[in-house]
Amino acid sequence: MEKIHGGDIYSFNRKIIDFSININPLGISDEIFSVINNSINEITNYPDIECGALKNAVSQQENICKDFIVFGNGAAEIIFNITNAIRPKKVLLIVPSFAEYERAADAVSAKKIYYFLKETTNFDVLENILTYIKNDIDMLFFCSPNNPTGRCADIELTLEIVRKCNKNNIFVVIDECFMDFVINSERYSFIPYIQKYNNVLILKSFTKIYAIPGIRLGYGICSNNEIIKKIHLTRQPWSISVLAQKAGISALNQKNFKDKTRSYVKKEKEFLTKEFHSIGITYFNSLANYILFKSEPNLDKKLLDYDILIRNCENFTGLSGEYYRTAIKSHSDNKILINALKNTLNKKS
Amino acid sequence: MEKIHGGDIYSFNRKIIDFSININPLGISDEIFSVINNSINEITNYPDIECGALKNAVSQQENICKDFIVFGNGAAEIIFNITNAIRPKKVLLIVPSFAEYERAADAVSAKKIYYFLKETTNFDVLENILTYIKNDIDMLFFCSPNNPTGRCADIELTLEIVRKCNKNNIFVVIDECFMDFVINSERYSFIPYIQKYNNVLILKSFTKIYAIPGIRLGYGICSNNEIIKKIHLTRQPWSISVLAQKAGISALNQKNFKDKTRSYVKKEKEFLTKEFHSIGITYFNSLANYILFKSEPNLDKKLLDYDILIRNCENFTGLSGEYYRTAIKSHSDNKILINALKNTLNKKS
Repeated sequence: MEKIHGGDIYSFNRKIIDFSININPLGISDEIFSVINNSINEITNYPDIECGALKNAVSQQENICKDFIVFGNGAAEIIFNITNAIRPKKVLLIVPSFAEYERAADAVSAKKIYYFLKETTNFDVLENILTYIKNDIDMLFFCSPNNPTGRCADIELTLEIVRKCNKNNIFVVIDECFMDFVINSERYSFIPYIQKYNNVLILKSFTKIYAIPGIRLGYGICSNNEIIKKIHLTRQPWSISVLAQKAGISALNQKNFKDKTRSYVKKEKEFLTKEFHSIGITYFNSLANYILFKSEPNLDKKLLDYDILIRNCENFTGLSGEYYRTAIKSHSDNKILINALKNTLNKKS
Repeated sequence: MEKIHGGDIYSFNRKIIDFSININPLGISDEIFSVINNSINEITNYPDIECGALKNAVSQQENICKDFIVFGNGAAEIIFNITNAIRPKKVLLIVPSFAEYERAADAVSAKKIYYFLKETTNFDVLENILTYIKNDIDMLFFCSPNNPTGRCADIELTLEIVRKCNKNNIFVVIDECFMDFVINSERYSFIPYIQKYNNVLILKSFTKIYAIPGIRLGYGICSNNEIIKKIHLTRQPWSISVLAQKAGISALNQKNFKDKTRSYVKKEKEFLTKEFHSIGITYFNSLANYILFKSEPNLDKKLLDYDILIRNCENFTGLSGEYYRTAIKSHSDNKILINALKNTLNKKS
């Protein structure tokens, strides 16, 4: 299997500080931990195919109708499910972005059209994207905040895009998997508008905000019942494991967890960007829990000498080898990163 | 979601003895339990997309090449993956059998051709199936032991079927998810022949034999590298959770577990069938850990009064409401079932 993502700690036979995946620096909560611990006996049962209890919890938390929710074995499963359900002939991709959209388009042999984000405009989606939305396109992937750039379009532009897509019979997947990290997310999130548009599915993830990528849990929100039905028809009934359902419910029980996370990430983002600035690293302002930056080639390989793994962005369509993405981790980890960067980049000069 | 399977204990607000799912009566081992327990911290990592350690373990246990193995989020995921990879126009289905083959065929809008197993010949696959194998068929699902009948074809017939399929460019999925329960499985299993035929994928499951349906782990064995590659191209990279990989490795570490299971199941199968005989219930000889039997309509509903859930087989293509499937459970559970059956069926007369 080709390695096109971060998180490959399994290739190393030593402990690595993994800045290549973007999960909550506060880590897994004691509550999730103990709920899983207390639920192990229940894995002798098949999972609830309705995800009944979990669906109730998400419905309450997101303030959306239960029927709008479809769970996945991680949000990534739903990318493939929805693409299978739509079976687009032509897909519009905003790049650079998460590679699984392209893989899902390839899996149904769709033609790929690219909208290239430009460094000169901070990798923002601009109004000119509307000229790309034509009626020969069947599907659009829209990642907000975008991975790896950390940028969000304002909701006004997103609404314009969705409306034009609606008119042209284009289905839009809005990936909000990192939206929980965004301060003032109401300026960006499409969730309040989901009931009004039947051509949109919003992706959300438990992986990142609750720091549980190993348990696999994500969901889609879509007000088009036919689409939800189609997704269920394209896959097995037991996608969501017993422990994922339990972990999800307990994750949602944590009070103030998102607020705590956001202010921690904000503070550490300020620390990292200030240090980047003083080292002379070009970075792009991120609304999420990771930062895209530019530096010399092979920086990722050099940082491995410090047991640090960052994400080389060379294999993102629309980026090249001098771009890197780093997660915002705990303060002590972030300090280790900064020191390693200082040592590595100073060695050269 | 339509309920077409057993195991729906979530619809009841009381404790139910679940004979509707067919998992090992010996239950989850202490070893698996404690490995999961000790691995909870690792769910803050993404799963190993290669399933490296687990693949080594399965390769050794099954004595097959590592490259032949593809893991799934339960074997059920692979049913959809392989059907997506093949994208058959016409599928031959042996019925009654596991409903997910039909659902997978429907998911790719394939035409379904049925080979009906006959009660008069003990629901066995007969040589006349060869006349159904014509070159307009693209795919065949072959469940051995078959669910819900518990019957296996002898390997000689299976080989004839595979060879004729090979000549006619038909891909065969041989579902051996219950083969681990079969005594003298070497008379039935296709695994020793997998290297020789590039038109076969064998399905295996951790769910049943290791009693861990809630954790989702299964695998496919296929010597056709192009097919394995295609499966990976049709889905996300992180299908197999961290805990499933850990559980799988520890499951395979258990010595003599399959032998212990087989002799326990044999003894309890003898107990149940002897009692069925004395009650006057018609049953079909099963090689697996479940029994198909025939009784009066609504027996499943009546057994719910005893907090017992059996599988009504009405929604199996090729069966009707008077057929039921029961798992072989622990001796004490099996006694409860027999007593309930005696009470229920006697009431009538």
